[in-house]
Amino acid sequence: MFSKKLKHLKVYEAGKPIELVVREFGIDEKDIIKLASNENPYGCSKKVQKEVSKIVDKMSIYPDDSMFELKEGLAKKFDIDSKNIIIGAGSDQILEFAVHAVEPKKVLMAKTTFAMYEIYSKQVGAEIIKTPSHEHNLDEFRELLKERPDIIFLCIPNNPLGECLDWIDVEEFIKEVDEDCLVIIDGAYQEYASYKNFDKTIPVKELINYKNVLYTGTFSKAYGLGGMRVGYGIANDYIVSNLYKLRPPFNITTLSLKASVVALEDEEFVKESVEKNFIEMKRYEEFCDKRELGYISSYTNFITIFVKDSPKLADVLLRKGIIVRDLSGYGLNAIRITIGTNKQNSRVLEVLDRLL
Amino acid sequence: MFSKKLKHLKVYEAGKPIELVVREFGIDEKDIIKLASNENPYGCSKKVQKEVSKIVDKMSIYPDDSMFELKEGLAKKFDIDSKNIIIGAGSDQILEFAVHAVEPKKVLMAKTTFAMYEIYSKQVGAEIIKTPSHEHNLDEFRELLKERPDIIFLCIPNNPLGECLDWIDVEEFIKEVDEDCLVIIDGAYQEYASYKNFDKTIPVKELINYKNVLYTGTFSKAYGLGGMRVGYGIANDYIVSNLYKLRPPFNITTLSLKASVVALEDEEFVKESVEKNFIEMKRYEEFCDKRELGYISSYTNFITIFVKDSPKLADVLLRKGIIVRDLSGYGLNAIRITIGTNKQNSRVLEVLDRLL
Repeated sequence: MFSKKLKHLKVYEAGKPIELVVREFGIDEKDIIKLASNENPYGCSKKVQKEVSKIVDKMSIYPDDSMFELKEGLAKKFDIDSKNIIIGAGSDQILEFAVHAVEPKKVLMAKTTFAMYEIYSKQVGAEIIKTPSHEHNLDEFRELLKERPDIIFLCIPNNPLGECLDWIDVEEFIKEVDEDCLVIIDGAYQEYASYKNFDKTIPVKELINYKNVLYTGTFSKAYGLGGMRVGYGIANDYIVSNLYKLRPPFNITTLSLKASVVALEDEEFVKESVEKNFIEMKRYEEFCDKRELGYISSYTNFITIFVKDSPKLADVLLRKGIIVRDLSGYGLNAIRITIGTNKQNSRVLEVLDRLL
Repeated sequence: MFSKKLKHLKVYEAGKPIELVVREFGIDEKDIIKLASNENPYGCSKKVQKEVSKIVDKMSIYPDDSMFELKEGLAKKFDIDSKNIIIGAGSDQILEFAVHAVEPKKVLMAKTTFAMYEIYSKQVGAEIIKTPSHEHNLDEFRELLKERPDIIFLCIPNNPLGECLDWIDVEEFIKEVDEDCLVIIDGAYQEYASYKNFDKTIPVKELINYKNVLYTGTFSKAYGLGGMRVGYGIANDYIVSNLYKLRPPFNITTLSLKASVVALEDEEFVKESVEKNFIEMKRYEEFCDKRELGYISSYTNFITIFVKDSPKLADVLLRKGIIVRDLSGYGLNAIRITIGTNKQNSRVLEVLDRLL
């Protein structure tokens, strides 16, 4: 009954939710530290919480499907026109629209990058081409252009590793790509990268001038709305209007729409979250330096640390109520830890100090 | 760059949101009566509102992607196993999974039924076969089995018309369908139909015994959570596990998950909404009888009324702040009105009385 393409599809494995650890290990919810899904440990803006609370009596009402206010807010943020924006249930959904709209025969991506690129691409039967290096290496991408991919994914900065290309190099690369090939720049963690080093900033407004570039952004990370599933795509009219053809109506909730509109009005919250993130990240870096553990210099809200036996370490931490991501599935003996609050990080570093 | 399939895709036209009427006609939000999207006019359960309010500080946290609690709640409601359930962002998304999983060459549906069946089917390039009659007519469906459709959509009761097949007839029909053809029974308005007439009740639990039947249900109508985008699919393990392969992670929000879990615990709210709906619907029926206007006997929370010039009537109502759905796009000179609250219906009937 079902398409043969489904046979080889694997399902995305989400970070373990707190509820599951409560159920499986009987640990009290209060004692669990979840640093596995790169959520904002500072929650979300108080203003957002207040405004969402005010409309819980509107949960029966479908959202404004034109998403007028949200697109206006984003247009202002990026100094672009609303018509160059499409809203998704997380930026994941924009990736899904793009892959299903192009129906690529071949897609090109870094060896270790966001898992959904591969999952969506396999849904349409595409062949997956990966660079030899785990981290993004543009010379390797260049070399693989001869394979004539239909979509190229660039995760800037990269999840789950944390490294980040410079815009100047990305720009040069894009110009070498055939205009029939869609280049997707996933900027889910751009607010972090851009704060740490201006050279990493993607000039989103300029991307609209390219025939074949799609930028994706999200409210799930620095804006602290991971649970509300709101992301966006930005590109020229031709690309955006084609993606619209695959957008289901009401693809974000009424409360998510309100939350993201208000979140854009509280950039102070984002700034504080990002600042604190890098202050706290230093503690992990210093710990690694002291213990001579390898790690990837990160432009995100997580850090990838190389260890001796990552599945075992992740499991021991889990039993202590600390949820991190084991990267052994990517062929790396490493764990990825979301940078938590000061208190959470103290506890994690204390436990790691004893274990390593 | 994009697939040729996209060329002929049309985009779903959502009911006009209140925000748009405020913007376009400058009518005060308080004076607008939106009866165009079959939302529950009684809002949603107070218990749901209370519990969702309590977790607005959790908007940064991804939902439990296993959706354990929600599936447990639904399993209890239908007396089935959790493994026979898949959660979607509205039941729309379950339809999307099904169509993309089957990749049908041909799909069969009633002439006038839920627009997304056709939209999703065209996304995968399927040929659309419709019965000659607007309303569901199983003899016409039978006749068209010779076309060998890969998917058959049955909307029970039917949106946007309101009529409803009897289960005994549906059961007989399903047994005549080739087992390689997926029969999708869309029960979005089942809570209404089932209350009005037991013969219309779909015995969801029994459907799992069929090799090729998928049932879809939603929290958007009787449960009053249209804005939260939660629906579900129920079928045998084989079908459900295949649909899972197309489910993106975190496909409902953290607040939607909580809202739907709590909504299942307040069936009293559903019962009251449904009871009031049919008391209020009588007023429209009596109005139509008195004015000798044709209407379709409805098993839902809306009524389809035949008029002289539906686009004009819908437009005049809109300018008075009353939003209804004009069905002329379906080739019907009719308007579809969601049954509102007592006060809303009084105002609508008063205006209609003057206009017709």
